[in-house]
Amino acid sequence: MKKGKRKARIGSKSLILLTNDDGIGAPGIYALFLELRKIGDVVIIAPDTERSAVGHAITISDPLRVWPYEKNGHFFGYAVNGTPADCVKIGRWALLERKPDLVVSGINLGPNTGINTIYSGTVSAATEGALLGIPSFAISLATYQHPDFRFAGKFGRKLALCLLQNGLPSGVYLNVNVPACPEKEIKGVAITRQGLARYEEKFDRRMDPNGRMYYWLTGQKVNKETDLSVDDGAVQANWVAVTPVHYDLTKYDFIETLKSWNLKK
Amino acid sequence: MKKGKRKARIGSKSLILLTNDDGIGAPGIYALFLELRKIGDVVIIAPDTERSAVGHAITISDPLRVWPYEKNGHFFGYAVNGTPADCVKIGRWALLERKPDLVVSGINLGPNTGINTIYSGTVSAATEGALLGIPSFAISLATYQHPDFRFAGKFGRKLALCLLQNGLPSGVYLNVNVPACPEKEIKGVAITRQGLARYEEKFDRRMDPNGRMYYWLTGQKVNKETDLSVDDGAVQANWVAVTPVHYDLTKYDFIETLKSWNLKK
Repeated sequence: MKKGKRKARIGSKSLILLTNDDGIGAPGIYALFLELRKIGDVVIIAPDTERSAVGHAITISDPLRVWPYEKNGHFFGYAVNGTPADCVKIGRWALLERKPDLVVSGINLGPNTGINTIYSGTVSAATEGALLGIPSFAISLATYQHPDFRFAGKFGRKLALCLLQNGLPSGVYLNVNVPACPEKEIKGVAITRQGLARYEEKFDRRMDPNGRMYYWLTGQKVNKETDLSVDDGAVQANWVAVTPVHYDLTKYDFIETLKSWNLKK
Repeated sequence: MKKGKRKARIGSKSLILLTNDDGIGAPGIYALFLELRKIGDVVIIAPDTERSAVGHAITISDPLRVWPYEKNGHFFGYAVNGTPADCVKIGRWALLERKPDLVVSGINLGPNTGINTIYSGTVSAATEGALLGIPSFAISLATYQHPDFRFAGKFGRKLALCLLQNGLPSGVYLNVNVPACPEKEIKGVAITRQGLARYEEKFDRRMDPNGRMYYWLTGQKVNKETDLSVDDGAVQANWVAVTPVHYDLTKYDFIETLKSWNLKK
């Protein structure tokens, strides 16, 4: 980083680490910043470019670089040549002078519901926050077109305040998906589980200008769950979906069956 | 892909898709191939280079390319310029003529225990297999030095046979970690849960030859769990750790508490 870098703005108020996976220049993170700064000191540490569908990737084989990023002529945050998870780690261990009180990731352009949750860079930043023992949530707007981030930003602020007050149990964090309808059509907040609908995928086979074949992934969810208790279903019906998630992948109720298999070395 | 590509070798035997995240040229995948080919038709579809710690990344913004990879003058498998998850997807939807009976990922050089599970490209390939409704497992050898993959390869074959016979419930897959001690010192097979010990991390701050700062992640697990019911503890004590995992991240037992918060829009 250049000499004379601005120190993270840490005051007496809550310290909020804000990141995303659409990149530090994306409008969603700016909308959330405008709201979160009303309730705390917000330090933005975000990828320099879009890192969608990076899953819970971390950068271990390459160096990371950090540089100040300006918006409208003023310091806005730190840009990192890494993933959302990298941004949280480097914020915690290298850039911030103390442990943040909250990690917020978003607002993502596009939903992170159902099995998308496991591919999501946005969610992975919140995972990383939880791994560090910090209350954390990811927030996404369920549209790819003409996004209006204002309601999602306001809801993000309310939830942030709630988490600063209540905390979260160790290892638990929240995945929030906001419908893209006008604010007055939003029905309320549903507490949901992650949908498990699969994708019907295919690969387009194409020829490049040099006559070499390449493939491009395309797909859509099938058998999408429509129940309001499921993230996909709630968002579809214009409810804000809040799903508590954790990073313990163990399928506990299969342990006994597996023991009964009597696997030998 | 070039004209005249070899078709996936599909016979009357079981079709096994084999991948990894150390790259198609890594010795671990070769050791597993030598064992798995004894029990089925093995098609290798693996990243062209090492993709460690890519998490559950998938490639959606770029084209994927596939080319035949030779070993000892013979066709060995398909190399893909993507992640382990990409390899399973492109295998299922573009390269193989039918759904595989089993997806196997490994043998990884280095353990994928505890919270490493969520960063692991090796495990993500098995996750992808499970998402596709295919019995799947990931297998890793708990060392980075002087690896001897022979026992892990044999155990992989036995487990593969077991899964071909028994199947797995929808959405469940296995994460296997093999200790690196000599075979005769291995005590047996432990059915485990994912460890939850955190890392103590830091970033080395260094100066590049051009006088610019860069950061490099380093860290080690703290408060490692030593109980035999935990993957870390079992491997440490020379047991093969088999952990059943799933991709539903919902923290079900926090749903009621979250409802009681009465979040409003």
